[in-house]
Amino acid sequence: MRVKPLSKLHFTTRLPQPSLFGADTLLIYDRRLGSLVPGFRAWAMGFAATYPVSSGERLKEIREFSTHIERILKITTNLSPRRMTVIVAGGGSVGDFGGFVASVFKRGVPLVHVPTTWLAAIDSAHGGKTALNASGGKNQIGTFYPASDVFLVKSVLLAQPKARVQDACGELAKTAFLDGGSWVAKALRNLRSAPSGEWLWANLKPAIEAKYKVVTQDPREASGVRQILNLGHTMGHVLESHLKLSHGEAVAQGLLFSLAWSFRRGALSLKDYGNARSLLQDKFGFAPLNLDRAFLKRAPSRAQAKGLLLQDKKRAARNEVTFVFLRATGKPYRESVSIDELLNEAQEQGWVR
Amino acid sequence: MRVKPLSKLHFTTRLPQPSLFGADTLLIYDRRLGSLVPGFRAWAMGFAATYPVSSGERLKEIREFSTHIERILKITTNLSPRRMTVIVAGGGSVGDFGGFVASVFKRGVPLVHVPTTWLAAIDSAHGGKTALNASGGKNQIGTFYPASDVFLVKSVLLAQPKARVQDACGELAKTAFLDGGSWVAKALRNLRSAPSGEWLWANLKPAIEAKYKVVTQDPREASGVRQILNLGHTMGHVLESHLKLSHGEAVAQGLLFSLAWSFRRGALSLKDYGNARSLLQDKFGFAPLNLDRAFLKRAPSRAQAKGLLLQDKKRAARNEVTFVFLRATGKPYRESVSIDELLNEAQEQGWVR
Repeated sequence: MRVKPLSKLHFTTRLPQPSLFGADTLLIYDRRLGSLVPGFRAWAMGFAATYPVSSGERLKEIREFSTHIERILKITTNLSPRRMTVIVAGGGSVGDFGGFVASVFKRGVPLVHVPTTWLAAIDSAHGGKTALNASGGKNQIGTFYPASDVFLVKSVLLAQPKARVQDACGELAKTAFLDGGSWVAKALRNLRSAPSGEWLWANLKPAIEAKYKVVTQDPREASGVRQILNLGHTMGHVLESHLKLSHGEAVAQGLLFSLAWSFRRGALSLKDYGNARSLLQDKFGFAPLNLDRAFLKRAPSRAQAKGLLLQDKKRAARNEVTFVFLRATGKPYRESVSIDELLNEAQEQGWVR
Repeated sequence: MRVKPLSKLHFTTRLPQPSLFGADTLLIYDRRLGSLVPGFRAWAMGFAATYPVSSGERLKEIREFSTHIERILKITTNLSPRRMTVIVAGGGSVGDFGGFVASVFKRGVPLVHVPTTWLAAIDSAHGGKTALNASGGKNQIGTFYPASDVFLVKSVLLAQPKARVQDACGELAKTAFLDGGSWVAKALRNLRSAPSGEWLWANLKPAIEAKYKVVTQDPREASGVRQILNLGHTMGHVLESHLKLSHGEAVAQGLLFSLAWSFRRGALSLKDYGNARSLLQDKFGFAPLNLDRAFLKRAPSRAQAKGLLLQDKKRAARNEVTFVFLRATGKPYRESVSIDELLNEAQEQGWVR
């Protein structure tokens, strides 16, 4: 299938010239990049206005949003709203925030993403989801607003700390399970030891294209097809919120739950289940939390997990969520399950107290 | 030209059955409607969740938005985000606010408008603009998010105070000048004395359709065609902000400025200028403020007007705005003018000190 991405992709070795984006540019960026990426400060100076932010979920807090937007209005007073472009350089939280800003600023100005973490480069910079948090729930507020262009910059991504590589492998494993294209087998053949930045870079393009294959079928999550990208995320989000796990780690743990449930209900064969677990555990090094005896003390209670599930935007009805199961690699399916049924399964597997 | 509206229009005598919109409904409404419109309270009780608001620009203040959205998240916890519909009943500010809520709530849920003021019924409920205010500027934040359906309810509109009829005639005159279709001449033939609610109702459909003719050519204000709807609004917004005029009155005064400028630069004939002025003054009863000797004391200073013009989202460049002139009824054109040039003209006409 030929796929026309929502955003134009640029795989480059260096940061793009600021002048590419015209004269009326606002750069929103993770302030840590200044010391992390050589040459970043000089690059940032090429933009008409710059807005440094501290990454993390607090940046996405709706209660802080008016302060941010009023500052941004102030520093962009001299730019033409009709010619303005917002360039966002950062990881997931900066992208979610900056994308939302671009989507509502003067009713929307063009957006360019420069994802600077592997996780953002593989996943969150693509597909147009922007998000803020509210009432203690993640991503309760947001828009569908694809970037016109996404720049994948090798030198920037390779400057990330090593731990970020493993983190990205949570989403990469998800994409591999969902897509099952020939790139997956090839990628694994080339993986001798723990994944490196160079290995990830080599697999970035097919992994992103696999995501676009899904997103372009259902850009605004209307038909439901796009929901399959939620594989591993239903329980992943519960664990992420409750245990303050990194998103990649949480998705990996959520995948272990989804795979086990798919196997236990007879959808996934033992062989496929074993291979998938082995990829997560042995190749990518995610140790299943529910096998750790000490984990049950930290695990969310049933009531806590239920509260978090009720905030799930994919909730199908009052007490149901759309859960993504796997029949085989490349063969996901969605099913509406009751929250009680899901909690029973999670308790049996030892993810919930 | 056949026009496919962005929203489905329903001209009805009574409020639509709440059950039409499914079980997972949120009604956002102007709290004054409870006492203003007979049967409104009983109607509101038919929705799963209700959120009464106080209309006015404060409702649209970005600093209040997090409080609103957290309350709305709370009262809709038991609704399915995937089946939810937001119904908005109110005038311009409630529609701008409610439309924005629908557009960003869980990344967007379906929206239905029930405009309850003539101004909203003729103008703001159509075309998909939602808006919040920030940093003292109107509509700095917003989205393009058309309602799936707009209900024009005769009994509700006729329940509005008489003053609202005249107010709506500001936008109606604008649409008439822009469109110049045969409905305009017919409407004026049928207008013996001051416009009544019944007269407005009879002309609602062609006036709305005239707006859609423009909006559907440029739904996201990308090509610029849609900017012609800004006729009268550049100076109108300055006067509205500075003098706290109603929107309709401000647009009418802004139209007087635009018509005079169009005439003074030789674009509009004396005859067409006279007819247009006569419609605003004699038929609709808008007395030109700049002919009032006492007005100059209240008028904005040049610096004040400049500050307000710099917030104009239609600003073409640093010191330019796109201004809409009229060549004849039905023949508007846009031109980029410098803010200084505009202020010179406004001073000569006596709109600015």
